[in-house]
This record gives sequence, structure tokens and C-alpha cells, in this order.
Amino acid sequence: MNLKMLDQVQTPTLVLDESRAKRNLRRMAAKAAAQNIRFRPHFKTHQSALIGEWFREVGVTAITVSSLGMAAYFADNGWDDILVAFPVNLREMDVIQDLAGRVRLGLLVESPESVACLSGRLDAPLDIWVKVDTGLRRAGLDVQDEDGLNAVLHEIQRSPDFNLRGLLTHAGQTYHAHSVLEIQDMYARSWQLLDDLRVRLAVKGFSGLEISVGDTPGCSLSADLGRVDEIRPGNFIFFDSTMAELGVCTLGEIAVAVACPVVALHPQRNEVVIYGGAVHLSKEMLEVGEQRFYGYAAFPNENGWQMTSRENKVIALSQEHGVVHLCQSDFKRVKIGGLLYILPVHSCLVVDALEKYLTLQGRVIPTFLSRKLLIKQA
Amino acid sequence: MNLKMLDQVQTPTLVLDESRAKRNLRRMAAKAAAQNIRFRPHFKTHQSALIGEWFREVGVTAITVSSLGMAAYFADNGWDDILVAFPVNLREMDVIQDLAGRVRLGLLVESPESVACLSGRLDAPLDIWVKVDTGLRRAGLDVQDEDGLNAVLHEIQRSPDFNLRGLLTHAGQTYHAHSVLEIQDMYARSWQLLDDLRVRLAVKGFSGLEISVGDTPGCSLSADLGRVDEIRPGNFIFFDSTMAELGVCTLGEIAVAVACPVVALHPQRNEVVIYGGAVHLSKEMLEVGEQRFYGYAAFPNENGWQMTSRENKVIALSQEHGVVHLCQSDFKRVKIGGLLYILPVHSCLVVDALEKYLTLQGRVIPTFLSRKLLIKQA
Repeated sequence: MNLKMLDQVQTPTLVLDESRAKRNLRRMAAKAAAQNIRFRPHFKTHQSALIGEWFREVGVTAITVSSLGMAAYFADNGWDDILVAFPVNLREMDVIQDLAGRVRLGLLVESPESVACLSGRLDAPLDIWVKVDTGLRRAGLDVQDEDGLNAVLHEIQRSPDFNLRGLLTHAGQTYHAHSVLEIQDMYARSWQLLDDLRVRLAVKGFSGLEISVGDTPGCSLSADLGRVDEIRPGNFIFFDSTMAELGVCTLGEIAVAVACPVVALHPQRNEVVIYGGAVHLSKEMLEVGEQRFYGYAAFPNENGWQMTSRENKVIALSQEHGVVHLCQSDFKRVKIGGLLYILPVHSCLVVDALEKYLTLQGRVIPTFLSRKLLIKQA
Repeated sequence: MNLKMLDQVQTPTLVLDESRAKRNLRRMAAKAAAQNIRFRPHFKTHQSALIGEWFREVGVTAITVSSLGMAAYFADNGWDDILVAFPVNLREMDVIQDLAGRVRLGLLVESPESVACLSGRLDAPLDIWVKVDTGLRRAGLDVQDEDGLNAVLHEIQRSPDFNLRGLLTHAGQTYHAHSVLEIQDMYARSWQLLDDLRVRLAVKGFSGLEISVGDTPGCSLSADLGRVDEIRPGNFIFFDSTMAELGVCTLGEIAVAVACPVVALHPQRNEVVIYGGAVHLSKEMLEVGEQRFYGYAAFPNENGWQMTSRENKVIALSQEHGVVHLCQSDFKRVKIGGLLYILPVHSCLVVDALEKYLTLQGRVIPTFLSRKLLIKQA
């Protein structure tokens, strides 16, 4: 990066290290390819049609999104195999009808009621995945709930509108693991539970079910991706402070950081006030021991940014302010009007908040959100 | 509200009870007027030109904002006395120069360096307020730091560009208080500290300094607003779950709630999955005892929404999902495809995330953020 380019940063700005992101992407794509597993990356992390093109270059043809609006955006941008990995929202039937007519649309269900509501209301067939809970306790039918699973599967089979694709889980409990080994165990357990279920369901006449898994920690740390048909990680393209704390990536692999203007210095307590608050960084926090924080702080350099100490952290956030604590020697390097880079706790939320990227080469990359609001004007 | 209107809610939608908001507004305006104190409300809470008009109707002529971009938006909408209550960001000198030329612009400083940087670069004079820390430990010079205060005040007086207005504090420590009495004490202590400082500074030749204070908890709960010249509360217009927990408002005075589609039911654990996650509600959380949560859940009714139990809470949030725990009897009332209302933990952050309002009468009210993104297209 040309450090001169930083002069144009006036407000909190999401900076993207394109070469790191592409390296993270190539690694995950190669791993899936080597094991003959479909790579259906989650695009909710980057939310950008332009970044989506980087995925095409490594052979990706099928994607995951987290909302129907996002599905429509990527459909408009040439993607034609899109899974909405979120329990179907019956209030958006118009969007579902439109999308089913123009792409191969996959939806997620976990109740016979939702399936019945969709049935008979579509002009084109839908791929249906059944959401199974393998331990996260957020959404999905419990993997042991055979009655519930039977009821949903039968409802799906009753209608010619549906193409029953298979079983899907999100083992997001890996985000709360305490070691690399625990993440690997959770990942293996989640696909094994689905694989066992697939065998039991085949006996009952539901044959040919696919298995879809894929949280970033599990997919990154497991050498063997298991007997699955597809993986859906998303965060891996950028990673973040959470992934570094979990041991999923190194700090040097994090591909996004928020450049924040320094607005005040408090030498008595080695604290810097930055323009960069909850509306830019999100209030997602990390807890390490007794300490809570909202991202690591790094310094600008010719190659982007550099972390010098794990002591350098965002310790408080209000709407627009952030308070950064720096180690003594680093505090002396900061000036009012300068910049600090914050390595986000959760990169997906920061992308959503900041809505566009500035690459180290100075290019601005828009996202779905910039676009969504442009549409509002029409 | 016409319950039929709710049929149009497809995605998480910020619903505004206009009459509650106006009642909250009239109460605060009347309190300031009765004590002959300037009411300079913080517009970062609502961020909307149209809602700004409601303030004009109760006599408001001076406002507070938290960013220069927001200042420009309200200047474009006819406000001509605007204080940016955030340590001045030297990287936005172009915006400062523009605004200083067309409105009475107030900026906040806490260091001689910032003052020196502003000096000589403006075509029109600026109001300058010195930020003083009366206990929050976020930004500002410590109220006891006489050397620091002297240095800043002298630097301000050296330049004809500046009109030294006075001393400003934000006693945001009230947000962490444990009782109404503690909030009242914190508020009184903060203005008394500034008032004492004003007396000491007058002796040193800095006479005529005004005092500006004003967090919502302190201004709402203190019958006597003290020897201050202006108050700057913002949140009071909507309030939120945090204010209700603190005893600053009743749950029935909260004027905004997020209508969220129900997408899945988990009767085994009385949990509902809603379309409404961190990108809609923010990850701001409340901690009551050992429990953390992200807002109270309420039910739609003819008058807007109704809370039936404090047990009904958002207990987990991911990017787009929320998990709501309901008491047994309320769980039975919920259907997939229905709506739950979430009373936000922090209304300012939810407004920022959702960018527009739907009133109970069915009117859509845009905010600065809808506008900011419209400008991007130009």
C-alpha cells in the first residue's frame, strides 16, 4: 500500500488486503476439490458481487446466502445455484416465487407447516434442505428427533414442487470451543451424526440424501472434511480476531481491518480515542479470561497494517467512539489525526456495517448493501 | 395500528409509535423550558430530518450530532446551530470548513494540538467547547487537570477563529448505575464539578463559560437540572430496554420496536427463531444477574405492541437469526409466519442498523443513513 493513500481516509473505513483474501480462498477451494466435495461458500461474509467473481476463478458455481434479498442480488449478478441457509421466511413469498423462476433456488425447512405453506404456490421447483441441529441449539430439528424428521420429509415428498436435496447443519458451536482439538471433534461429530441419520433415513425410504455442513473453524482445521457432499464456510475469506483467538488462523491471515482516525490521546492511562464505534465495528466482543474487548489494534505500514502487541485492544465502544488501550511503547507512536487499524472481532458484521471496501491498492469495492440502498431510490 | 398493515412487514422492520415519541419529547422540552435551560437535543438517536421537525414544534433551535456527516445532513435540512459532540476529527477539515461557512458550528476539543490544527484554516468563526471528563473515562480532560485545561483554553484564546463557548461533559456513567438515586447523584455531581471548575477558571480570566451536560438517564430522573446552560439528551425520545431496566422509563414509554418474522418454533425449549439478528438489533446486550439478553419480546396488538412477561427475551443473536425465549403460556400464541416485536437494548444502534421507520399509522420515515446512501449514487 502506498501510505500516501491513507491520507484520503476521513472516516472509519474497511480496508481489504486482496492478496490475503485470495490466498485464504484458494486454500479452502483446493481442500474441497482434493476431497471431491462441492464448495458452496457462504457469501454473507463479503456480500459483494465483485468479490464473488474471485470465487468463480477458483471454480465455484454454487453459493450460500443468508437472506432472500441477498439471493436476489447474487442472482442479478449471474449466480444460478443459490442456497438460502436460513429457515424459510414465509413473509417473502413473492421473492421466493420470483427467484425460483430464474435460478436453482435452495431453501431450508424444519417444520411441516413451512413446507405446506410453500406447496402449490410455486411455478418452478425448489431444492429443499432439511435443517438439522447437531449441537448448536439455534435452529433445526434435533438430529435424534426421528418423528419430527419423518413428518417434514413426508410433507416434502407429498408435493411435486420440491426436490428433496438432503440434510444440512451448521455446527456453529465450534465458535465457542476451547481448543483446536475440540473444534475438530465438533466438526467430525456433526457430519458423523448426519451421516448416521442418512443411513437410518435410507432404510425408511428416503434415499439419495446429500449432506451439507460447514462452519469456518471446522472446515479450516479438519484435514478430513468427512463423508459430506458440500461445505459452506464463509468467514474464512477474511477471518477475524475471533478466528485468531480460536487458533483457526494466524493474525497475519486476517484480510480486513478498519482504519480509524485518532481523535484524542490519554497518556495517563495509555488510551487512545478513535473515530470508530459500535456502528462501525459492531458490539460483537471477545472474552479472554476476565477481559472483554472489541478487536485488536494495529499500525499502518507499507504493506497494509502490522500488529505489534496483543495488549493493543479496543476496550470500549459507544455509538461513534472507540477506546483503544495500547502498550506503553506503542502509545508513543500515535498522533491525533493519525490512524489505527482495528482487526474486527467478527468480520461479517463489520462488512455489513461499513458497506464497502477500500483495497490496499486503492480500489473501492461495493457490497449488496450499497446496492440495496441504491435500489431504494428507484 | 391497523393489524392488517402488519401483513406488509416482510423483513425486520423498525416500528415507531409516534405518539409515545412525541409525548417523551414534550416532557423533556417542558422540563428544560421550566428551568430556563437551553434544550440542545442529541439527534444521533433518531437521525431523521422529519423527526427533527417535531423538535422545532416544541421550540428547539439548537441541536447536537455525533458526526460531521450528520451535521451536514441537518444543515441541509434547515438547522443552523449545530454542535458536533465528538472530539474533532482533523481528517474532515473540508467538511468543517464548509459547515463553518453556513451554520453556527460548535466543535469539541480536548487538546492544544487539535486547536492549533484548526486555527488559521477557517473562513468563518467556530464555537469551541472544551470536553471535560467528569467520571466516564472515555474522552475529555479530567476535571481536576488544571494544567491541561489551561493549555487548551489558552490555545483557544490565541486565535480569533474561535468563540470559546464553555465546558461540556457527558456523564455516561449513569448508564452503568445501579439505582435511580445513584443516577441522580451522578448527574448532580457532574454539573457541580463543572460549575466549580467554571468558578476557578473565571478567577484565572476565563469568564462567561457556559456549561453543557446531558445524558438521558440524568436529565430524565433529576427534577433539578442544576446550574447548567444547556442539556443534550437524545435517547429519551424513544427510550429502550436499557432505560427501562435502569428505571429511567417504563416499558410502556418505549417508542420503537423491531417487528421480526417468526421462522421456526422449538416447543421443547420454548424458543422461537426470528428473522432479526445482529445486523438488525445490534449486539448491544443487557446483563441482569447472570443472564445476558438482547431485548424484550412483545406481541402485536391494535395499539402497536404489548409486553406480557419479562421472561420473554432475545437470548441469542447471530448475523440474521435471533433466538427468543418465551414463557410457556406465551409460546402457544406464536405461529410460523407471524411476528414478534423486539424492544431494543439500545434504540440508537437499532435506528442506525435499520435506517428507516414505519409508523403505527403506516408512514415510512427515512433517516440520514437512507439519505447518505442515496448521495453515493450521485
